[in-house]
Amino acid sequence: MIESLNKAFCILPGVGSKTANRFVYHLLERDRDGGMKLAKALIDAMENVKHCQSCRALSEKELCNICSNTVRDSSQLCIVETPTDIHAIEQSGAYKGKYFVLSGYLSPIDGIGASELGLNELEEKLKDSTINEIILATNATVEGEVTAHYISNMARQFNIQITRIAHGIPIGGELEYADINTIAHALSGRKKYD
Amino acid sequence: MIESLNKAFCILPGVGSKTANRFVYHLLERDRDGGMKLAKALIDAMENVKHCQSCRALSEKELCNICSNTVRDSSQLCIVETPTDIHAIEQSGAYKGKYFVLSGYLSPIDGIGASELGLNELEEKLKDSTINEIILATNATVEGEVTAHYISNMARQFNIQITRIAHGIPIGGELEYADINTIAHALSGRKKYD
Repeated sequence: MIESLNKAFCILPGVGSKTANRFVYHLLERDRDGGMKLAKALIDAMENVKHCQSCRALSEKELCNICSNTVRDSSQLCIVETPTDIHAIEQSGAYKGKYFVLSGYLSPIDGIGASELGLNELEEKLKDSTINEIILATNATVEGEVTAHYISNMARQFNIQITRIAHGIPIGGELEYADINTIAHALSGRKKYD
Repeated sequence: MIESLNKAFCILPGVGSKTANRFVYHLLERDRDGGMKLAKALIDAMENVKHCQSCRALSEKELCNICSNTVRDSSQLCIVETPTDIHAIEQSGAYKGKYFVLSGYLSPIDGIGASELGLNELEEKLKDSTINEIILATNATVEGEVTAHYISNMARQFNIQITRIAHGIPIGGELEYADINTIAHALSGRKKYD
């Protein structure tokens, strides 16, 4: 029982046998109520959390809170790789438009093409709606760049402004510690200073 | 649902909101089966794991595997603060005796005295049994030392050898990086070199 709980914890990202052990003993020795609550919250979420019909983010309802929020600007659509990215952008408070969540990034080798990514749904969305800007917020990895490029090609047929989030030195970051790719990107993407 | 699962994960030691978020999204997006398995393993363990009647370690049976193992030397009793400590010592493979688990350490300010710690049960155990050595393996903290001292005083009434695990520079550790208390301990506890 203890060992099977340990193994069950190991499926979590970044959790190895030692961390799992710490979790198991903590719950068993100090917080059995918390352990039961966690179990119930897990069952509840695993069974009832679906994907939003509009943006494909995780949601308990047909439409997620952001999609059903009429105050938000539906002329902007930010395209991200995962629901976690929405969370990150929302915490910055710098975006008031809507989202579209891909199922990761284009990876033909792994059998993940345009349809697996949900790009057909995205295309439908772009046809119908009042969107006049898409913001490509896929990750700054090779795969993320390829995916962004593919989407920008696809969206060019519509009369839509296509933008990509800026990449460069992080705020508070020091040039000295930035990697060469980031520095190269920061230089090539330099803006007029005013 | 997503938020309550996030909060439920935060009870785990070392897990904050960001890590919990990563767990939640990983399970919901990629491993719902794993999430359900974790929930079931949690319920199973929280409901069925008890404490061993003899050594007070966590166990699924009345007697834990170590206590019910007749091959192990029952003349030695290693006293530890938590069940996790047993796990650590067992992994070293250097000990073949039995264990006794305290409920932490003596801490009169928090209302944890001798009886809360299970020292009465320990005393009973020392009276009855064939134990001829107790090994004090409480942590090398102030509280652990006080607890060790208290137990050694208590055990002195019986005809038992009382030992304390050695403290000093960790194997593979460098003097340069050891803290002053460890160095002081390593010097005062020096042994004849042969």
